[in-house]
Amino acid sequence: MSGTDAAPPGSRMGVELNAQPSVWRRIMAERAAIHAAADRIRAAAPRFVLLAARGSSDHAALYGKYLAEIRLQLPAGLVSASAFTLYRADPDLRDVLLIAVSQSGASPDLVQTVELARRRGALTLALTNQPGSELARAAEVTLDIRAGEEQAVAATKSYTAQLLTLFLLLDRASGGNGAEADRLPDLGEAVLGGEPSLRALAQRYRFARRMVVTARGYAYPTAREAALKLMETCYLSAHAFSGADLLHGPLAMIDAEVPVIAILGEGAGGNAMRPVLDRLRAAGADLFCIGPAQSVADCDPRFALPDGIAECVAPVLQILPLQLLSLHLALARGGNPDAPRGLGKVTKTL
Amino acid sequence: MSGTDAAPPGSRMGVELNAQPSVWRRIMAERAAIHAAADRIRAAAPRFVLLAARGSSDHAALYGKYLAEIRLQLPAGLVSASAFTLYRADPDLRDVLLIAVSQSGASPDLVQTVELARRRGALTLALTNQPGSELARAAEVTLDIRAGEEQAVAATKSYTAQLLTLFLLLDRASGGNGAEADRLPDLGEAVLGGEPSLRALAQRYRFARRMVVTARGYAYPTAREAALKLMETCYLSAHAFSGADLLHGPLAMIDAEVPVIAILGEGAGGNAMRPVLDRLRAAGADLFCIGPAQSVADCDPRFALPDGIAECVAPVLQILPLQLLSLHLALARGGNPDAPRGLGKVTKTL
Repeated sequence: MSGTDAAPPGSRMGVELNAQPSVWRRIMAERAAIHAAADRIRAAAPRFVLLAARGSSDHAALYGKYLAEIRLQLPAGLVSASAFTLYRADPDLRDVLLIAVSQSGASPDLVQTVELARRRGALTLALTNQPGSELARAAEVTLDIRAGEEQAVAATKSYTAQLLTLFLLLDRASGGNGAEADRLPDLGEAVLGGEPSLRALAQRYRFARRMVVTARGYAYPTAREAALKLMETCYLSAHAFSGADLLHGPLAMIDAEVPVIAILGEGAGGNAMRPVLDRLRAAGADLFCIGPAQSVADCDPRFALPDGIAECVAPVLQILPLQLLSLHLALARGGNPDAPRGLGKVTKTL
Repeated sequence: MSGTDAAPPGSRMGVELNAQPSVWRRIMAERAAIHAAADRIRAAAPRFVLLAARGSSDHAALYGKYLAEIRLQLPAGLVSASAFTLYRADPDLRDVLLIAVSQSGASPDLVQTVELARRRGALTLALTNQPGSELARAAEVTLDIRAGEEQAVAATKSYTAQLLTLFLLLDRASGGNGAEADRLPDLGEAVLGGEPSLRALAQRYRFARRMVVTARGYAYPTAREAALKLMETCYLSAHAFSGADLLHGPLAMIDAEVPVIAILGEGAGGNAMRPVLDRLRAAGADLFCIGPAQSVADCDPRFALPDGIAECVAPVLQILPLQLLSLHLALARGGNPDAPRGLGKVTKTL
């Protein structure tokens, strides 16, 4: 598990990254458990949604928060785990749906949060890649994200498996049929076919030390996850900002020396990025855009995603080119993204 | 308002920064409106708290989220404004307390969020420095944060005025008497007396381009606000991480070339930072610690805050040395923190 054995650098991340479309096919083929969990949510008729997670899973949870707000039409929040674990808050959580997201299911703060939420009346649901984990045992309902063993420290397939599971779950709970996701595996394979262009693009950032990733709405979690990938595999100071927050201060730090990656969706969130791109260009930013072909046609460099993807499922595809960029930039810089310095696969925090 | 007139660089930020203890005295002397708002909260008996804000105010809102979770013992979340404004979510918000925080009260996304929340049954409360603003008119209850006109683009006194108002409000709503805050003005003056040491410390970071600020629990919003101050005044790529999140990935990017600032509280949050400091030291980090004298005695460089400050009000003091550091580092780098490039005082986002 340490990644210090004989496998070539990045080979695990590469294998896991390329396995994603097949993981998604498995999730979609075996969605009975997801539908049963969605039925539990409908029966409980929650009035508020809380999500709890750390690391990459926290970005999946943030995507889940948008789904809860927009699809379930419920107020939602990300739990400050420390409020429960360090400060011993003991709130009344009846009418609350609490969703914990964790690849390993092993972080004690999440386990404690789920135990407390369950004791205090919430419907607790765990999404994890380890259905035998302590987190899975703590929650009332557990969904296996079916990503298969993940060995690279940098999460890839577990992340998109969490996204897709959350979409199918919350879409179903809101009365949808999940059809927006049907084409994702085929489209994912097409996107992964763009690997050579991202390997070439990585050269552009060989000596960058800072980076900014920006997006709005449903695509914002993608910016957060991309920044984390770049931090943990390439040791870049990579910042993620919602396009709106960027204009409220951080824009000042952008000049031609700070590369910016913008992720554009096809709907309201993507449209709202237009004025942000204008401000970035006015600030002289070096801009790389990822989005539907029609949205990025006037950008250079750019990575075109297929047109016609519903904005609510686009995050499953959007992260792929950014995972590939992280992998190839890490390799170009002589690193090993399978085993970043200072990190283990399972992080336990209180 | 543009800061491009004859005032010496940083003079406005310096004046506003040093006015903070007197602003806090004014807030505490005139708290009848805060108590009346707290009574409204108690009468409404909300079951869920939402907070909405952007920029520095968003960090005050994050502090308010900890207070809501720990003091009010209620589940709480930060609103994704775009869910309401871009995606037209229209959730049932009965039993919800929605608190919007904004210095200017002018950002259309916050105004829309408050209007929607009020229409959908939430008790809406606006904290703003502009009691005649559109936001103030939209909310059912408005609290003037009494910071006086703020001209520097980098918010200082409005930020701590928001923190203190949120503390007095939510402490009172949970049955407290606010006594933890009584000493803050005197202690704030003592902390501001440490300016020479921070002016000297700024030299250490003269050529830094990246920085990490970390804290846990109640102090985490301080890390977020400090990072924003450093970004908008010094154009540093300054990252804030909760100590727990840092260990879930970003730790990999830390080496001796990335200066780290750690903020320590006196209670549970501060204690939970101990293992984080150990990991940072093991990674070779250059570490500057801010915290109660007894907690930072073994750190160098360090900035000692008074001992015996309750962790729940410490954020009001903790940000002061970081505001001073931002001011003096910006000046040392030849910048003008009153008027950062690319920013205006009021940012309007949808």
